[in-house]
Amino acid sequence: MRILVALGGNALLRRGEALTAENQRRNVRVAAEALAPLGREHELVISHGNGPQVGLLALQSASYDRVSEYPLDVLGAQTEGMIGYMIEQELGNLLPFEQPFATVLSMVEVDPEDPAFQHPSKPIGPLYGEEEARRLAREKGWTMAPDGDKLRRVVASPLPRRIFQIRPVKWLLERGCIVICAGGGGIPTMYGPDRKLHGAEAVVDKDRASALLARELEADLFIMATDADAVYLDWGRPGQRAIRRASPAALAALSFAAGSMGPKVEAACDFASRTGRTAAIGTLSALVGVVAGEAGTQVGAAAPGIELYPA
Amino acid sequence: MRILVALGGNALLRRGEALTAENQRRNVRVAAEALAPLGREHELVISHGNGPQVGLLALQSASYDRVSEYPLDVLGAQTEGMIGYMIEQELGNLLPFEQPFATVLSMVEVDPEDPAFQHPSKPIGPLYGEEEARRLAREKGWTMAPDGDKLRRVVASPLPRRIFQIRPVKWLLERGCIVICAGGGGIPTMYGPDRKLHGAEAVVDKDRASALLARELEADLFIMATDADAVYLDWGRPGQRAIRRASPAALAALSFAAGSMGPKVEAACDFASRTGRTAAIGTLSALVGVVAGEAGTQVGAAAPGIELYPA
Repeated sequence: MRILVALGGNALLRRGEALTAENQRRNVRVAAEALAPLGREHELVISHGNGPQVGLLALQSASYDRVSEYPLDVLGAQTEGMIGYMIEQELGNLLPFEQPFATVLSMVEVDPEDPAFQHPSKPIGPLYGEEEARRLAREKGWTMAPDGDKLRRVVASPLPRRIFQIRPVKWLLERGCIVICAGGGGIPTMYGPDRKLHGAEAVVDKDRASALLARELEADLFIMATDADAVYLDWGRPGQRAIRRASPAALAALSFAAGSMGPKVEAACDFASRTGRTAAIGTLSALVGVVAGEAGTQVGAAAPGIELYPA
Repeated sequence: MRILVALGGNALLRRGEALTAENQRRNVRVAAEALAPLGREHELVISHGNGPQVGLLALQSASYDRVSEYPLDVLGAQTEGMIGYMIEQELGNLLPFEQPFATVLSMVEVDPEDPAFQHPSKPIGPLYGEEEARRLAREKGWTMAPDGDKLRRVVASPLPRRIFQIRPVKWLLERGCIVICAGGGGIPTMYGPDRKLHGAEAVVDKDRASALLARELEADLFIMATDADAVYLDWGRPGQRAIRRASPAALAALSFAAGSMGPKVEAACDFASRTGRTAAIGTLSALVGVVAGEAGTQVGAAAPGIELYPA
């Protein structure tokens, strides 16, 4: 089976943890333990987020020297290098030496006319108190938005239209490589009036880019690994119920939190409805069960509306 | 023909230029113009240095927050992402859309017992005056060494023993990809007593890693693109003479500056003597001539000792 696993932010950094190399590596090691059994049995592609990382690198480059402050495409490329390396190394330490790996730098095309450029919505970097957030907004021209009881920088998150490196990724999968790609939703790029490809000041949503990747790679299964063990009906309310299986149409008809589960449900429905194959949402620790169809929320055309887990 | 071009530091940043994204991109664009004709006619692999970049990222992460100061392996991975992206994008803008590209993150194995760990020699980051250099040495435990009339941080530069991603790179070349890899000499890693692969606090010499890469990929031609249009006898003295062709044995018997031409000559002789194929040293602007054997210094077993260009 060809499986794409999109690692959520918490696979790399738990909320509230400092963004040190050690913390990231420790979390990646846990993720690698969960991924290793899949790597032994299936064609495996891994994508990942980069929200905290790209935000931190932006702060680092800005604080050291305004001259060398880098745009988001370049910082995104840096995070693909850093996170890809950690995943490849830690997963490599758990699998036979002969297993080939490749982290393939991934560029994603976005539309310069995408309305998302007018409405920044993707949170990156650390959380700020109100005063600091106001200062940063003023000094750097950043847009800030609430995140819990704090504030966070938000940037444009246009739709991914194309992943340029699809062919190399396919060729490597055919040779048995475990491939890490489309990190951070891919490096955002767009064609200018000069018909050349340029960087875009944006961060593409990782789940959307991963859905596109899964589709183009004709993955049999597209898994979004996250904090939640399933998609819930009435999440956070008494009587909340975990969804076992859902058809894309039935699931898309429900509404979920815009910042967290919403984009994942949207990406799952998009993949399942367009391909007729299965998308799943669940925790890393239950990954083998998710693949077996026994854990997480499975979204597929064959599902009968909405089927819940026993209460 | 399968050609590996190792881009010298000046292909990315000219001496004295600020390390901005714009400056790097402008230089990469010039390099891409030189590389494009090779990409149209040959199997092309591109490697590159990262000395200024990895040094700057180290300073950025240290100055923002000591907690998130990253080790050199992680920073090296970041630079492979950043520089690989710029090369891939700029070269992609010059070649037909159908041309596939892949930047493959590259990990290099070094020996933890390598004596280089006791004798840091590889300069990274910016130039400092004496006072600032002394302060940094004290505060951060860095080793500083002279570079012209200034000082610069030096780190360990152990020998590369293995490039882990050789197979994926080969597979991609066989499919017609232009591959960018082994950037910055590769991400330095080593096996620990636990038999796991860990990061190494080092920067591998790009020319050495590129020679190993060229050998393993069975490249027909290994080119080191640099500032100098050739290797010179009596460089900097009246009567200096450019070498047109040299056998590895004859060239290895001469002595060259340790910091600049020395490692390139060593890498060229190593490749040519081990493989019987040709290594060449010359400028980016003369790249097509270097491939045709009409420019630069060509190092190969068939060369008759040392042959000079006309004075």
